[in-house]
Amino acid sequence: MSSVDFPSQVPAGAGAVLAIDLDAIAGNWRVLRDHAQRSGRAVECAGVVKADGYGLGAVPVATALAGAGCRSFFVADLEEATTLRAALPDARVLVLHGPAAGTEREMAALGLTPVLNSLDDIARWRATAVALDRPLAAYIHIDTGMNRLGLDDRGARHLAADPALLTGLTPAGWMSHLASADVAGDGLAAEQDARFRAHLARLPGAPASLAASSGIFREPALLHDLVRPGAALYGVNPTPEAPNPMAPALRLLGRILQVREVPAGATVGYGATYRTTAPARLATIAVGYADGYFRALGSSGHVTIAGVRASVVGRISMDLLSVDATRVPPEALVPGAFAELIGPDRPLDDVAADAGTIGYEILTGLGRRFCRVYQGAWPVAAHP
Amino acid sequence: MSSVDFPSQVPAGAGAVLAIDLDAIAGNWRVLRDHAQRSGRAVECAGVVKADGYGLGAVPVATALAGAGCRSFFVADLEEATTLRAALPDARVLVLHGPAAGTEREMAALGLTPVLNSLDDIARWRATAVALDRPLAAYIHIDTGMNRLGLDDRGARHLAADPALLTGLTPAGWMSHLASADVAGDGLAAEQDARFRAHLARLPGAPASLAASSGIFREPALLHDLVRPGAALYGVNPTPEAPNPMAPALRLLGRILQVREVPAGATVGYGATYRTTAPARLATIAVGYADGYFRALGSSGHVTIAGVRASVVGRISMDLLSVDATRVPPEALVPGAFAELIGPDRPLDDVAADAGTIGYEILTGLGRRFCRVYQGAWPVAAHP
Repeated sequence: MSSVDFPSQVPAGAGAVLAIDLDAIAGNWRVLRDHAQRSGRAVECAGVVKADGYGLGAVPVATALAGAGCRSFFVADLEEATTLRAALPDARVLVLHGPAAGTEREMAALGLTPVLNSLDDIARWRATAVALDRPLAAYIHIDTGMNRLGLDDRGARHLAADPALLTGLTPAGWMSHLASADVAGDGLAAEQDARFRAHLARLPGAPASLAASSGIFREPALLHDLVRPGAALYGVNPTPEAPNPMAPALRLLGRILQVREVPAGATVGYGATYRTTAPARLATIAVGYADGYFRALGSSGHVTIAGVRASVVGRISMDLLSVDATRVPPEALVPGAFAELIGPDRPLDDVAADAGTIGYEILTGLGRRFCRVYQGAWPVAAHP
Repeated sequence: MSSVDFPSQVPAGAGAVLAIDLDAIAGNWRVLRDHAQRSGRAVECAGVVKADGYGLGAVPVATALAGAGCRSFFVADLEEATTLRAALPDARVLVLHGPAAGTEREMAALGLTPVLNSLDDIARWRATAVALDRPLAAYIHIDTGMNRLGLDDRGARHLAADPALLTGLTPAGWMSHLASADVAGDGLAAEQDARFRAHLARLPGAPASLAASSGIFREPALLHDLVRPGAALYGVNPTPEAPNPMAPALRLLGRILQVREVPAGATVGYGATYRTTAPARLATIAVGYADGYFRALGSSGHVTIAGVRASVVGRISMDLLSVDATRVPPEALVPGAFAELIGPDRPLDDVAADAGTIGYEILTGLGRRFCRVYQGAWPVAAHP
C-alpha cells in the first residue's frame, strides 16, 4: 500500500505511523475467551496489558478490552497499575511483581490485587490487612518450573500446612506459569500442571490460573478457572506450529524520505557492508533502530511499497533504513509515500523471525517517535 | 554496589533506576571540543541529540550541553526540533531529515535550520524564503558514500553549475557523513573527504562539516569547520581499537525481586533452556526485554551485585531476568537491593557486544519504565 487510509490524521512531518486496531484486539480477546470456554465451562478470560500493553498503549487497549467484557487485567508493577486504575476505576487490576516493601498501603488504597510471590509477600500483605482492619484480596503464585517468581515447593507446602498464614487475606486465586506452552506436544506443560494440581489439592479453595496465550490452545486441562492471554491479543501467533488464529493488531508504516538512482558498485550505509551489483533504485525510509526496527534486520529484513517487496540493504541506521526498491513501480516510489514495515503484507512474527527474536520483543521495542493512530473502540486520535 | 547513592529519590515501587550523569555528558562534550581544536583552529563542536538524546532525554542533555557552551544541536525531525526549540529558544537547531513537504512554514516560524538533502528540498525551502520575503538559513548535505540522504554527485554538480538555485537562502554549512570512521585506518574516510572537498571547491563558501564522534579522533583533515558528535557524548567509545576516552554517562540498576535456592537440575525461564549443574542461588531482577535489556543477552549477559559478577541464566523475559548469584555474599543478596546492568562495573560497550550489537542501539532501546534520575547540571529530579 503506497498511501495511508487515514491521511487527515497524519501530520506532514511524521516520519512513521503506528496504526493500532483496537477492534482487532477486542476481537482477539473474544476469540481467546470463546476458545477457553470451548468445553462449556465459564472460564474467565483476563487481559495482560503489562509493558504498556505490549507497547501498544495499556490504557486504550484495556479500555477496548473492557468494552468487550474483560474484567481482570494483569500489569507488572505499581506504576503500571496506577495508570490503569485511573482509566478503569472498576476493573480488577492484578500486579504480577507483587507488593514491593513500602508500597503495600498505596496498593491497598488503589484497590489493587497483588500477586504474592513469596511467604514474605504474603506476610507483608497480611500485615497490611491487619493494620487496615479489612480483608485484602490476593492472587498467590506458586512456581512449578520457571524458577523466576512464586512460592517454591517448600514455600507452598509450608503455606498448606499453616493456612493461618492467610488469615485476613481473601485468596482471589492461585496461579502458576508455563515455561513452554508455545511448543506443541512439549511434555513440560503437563508436568507443571500436575505439580500445580498437587499443590492446589493441599491449599484452600480459590480459582486457579495457569494458561496464558499459548496454553489456551493446548490441553483443556490447562485452562483451570482463569486464562491470562497477552501476546495473542496483540496478534502474535500462540500456535507457532499452525496458521495464526489471531488477527493482526498493528501496522507500522515508514515515510520514504528520498529515492536514489545508484550505479552498480555503490555502497550503502555504515561500514559500506552492502554493494549494488547492478544499477538500482534505493529508497531511504525514516525509521531506524531507535524506533525499534532492530539493527539485526540490516542483513535480513524487507518491507513492502505498494505491495511490492523491497529488501533492506546495508546496516540499519539510528533513524533511517535503506531498501532496494528497484522493482517498485516508479509512480509509487516518491518521497512522502509510505512503506509497510509491519502489517498485513509483513506479519509481525515474520519480522521477528528475520530479526532472530520473537514477536513479543518487536512489540515491546516499538519506539516513541511514531505518529500513533488508534482505530476502533477507542476514540480515534493521532498522537504525533 | 548493592545500594543506590540517591535512595531518597527512588520510589519504593520502582523496579529499575536509570541514573543519567549530565556532568559527565557535558564533560564529554568539552573533551570532544578540545580534541577537535587540538590544531589550534576554532572548530565548532555541535551536539547530536536526536532520538531523544540517544534515549537519555534530549531536553536535559541539550540543556546541560548549552551550559557547557554548545550552541548548535542536531535532531532528526520536526517533532524533535519542536521539543528542543521550546527548551532552548536561542540555540541553533538543525533538522537532519530536512523539511518534509508541507512543514516548511512551521520550520521557518520556529527558526529551525533544516538540512537540505535533495534539489527538491532546496527548491521548496527557497520557495518558502521567497514567500516569506526573508533569507532562510540552511545546511546542505552532499552524499559521499552512504547513499542514504543528501545530494548525489550529479545533484551537487548541478547546484555548483547554477548557484542561483540558492538565491534567497543563507548557506549555513555544507555537510557529509562518514560511513566507517569507527574503523581505524579505514581508507574510506579519506576517499569520502576527497569527494567532499572536490564538491566544496565548486560550491559557494560556507562552513563545512564531516566528522561525527569517531571522525574527531581520526585525521585532522576530517575536522573541517564543525564537528557533530553524538554517541561519544553518551559514553560510547569512538575509538573501538583503543581504551575509551569518554566518561560513562549512565548507570542502569535493576531491583532484585526474589532470591531462590534451587537444587542441581533445576530449569530456569521460558523454554527451560538453562539447567543448574549444582545447587545455586538465583536472583530474579525486575528488568526484561521490554525495558530494552535485549533478549539476545539471555545466553550471554551478566550483571554485578555488590560488585560481584552474576551471569544471566535462561531466557530474558519481558519484565524479568534471572541471574546465578551463588557467588554474591548472602547479606548483599536481598529483595529490594539493586543489581548493576550497565555502569562502571558493566560498561555500555561490553553489554552491547554481549548482545551482538553496538552501544548506540542499547542506548536508544532503553525503556520507559525506569525511574530516571538526572544528576549534574540539570536540576536533580526523579521521574518514576
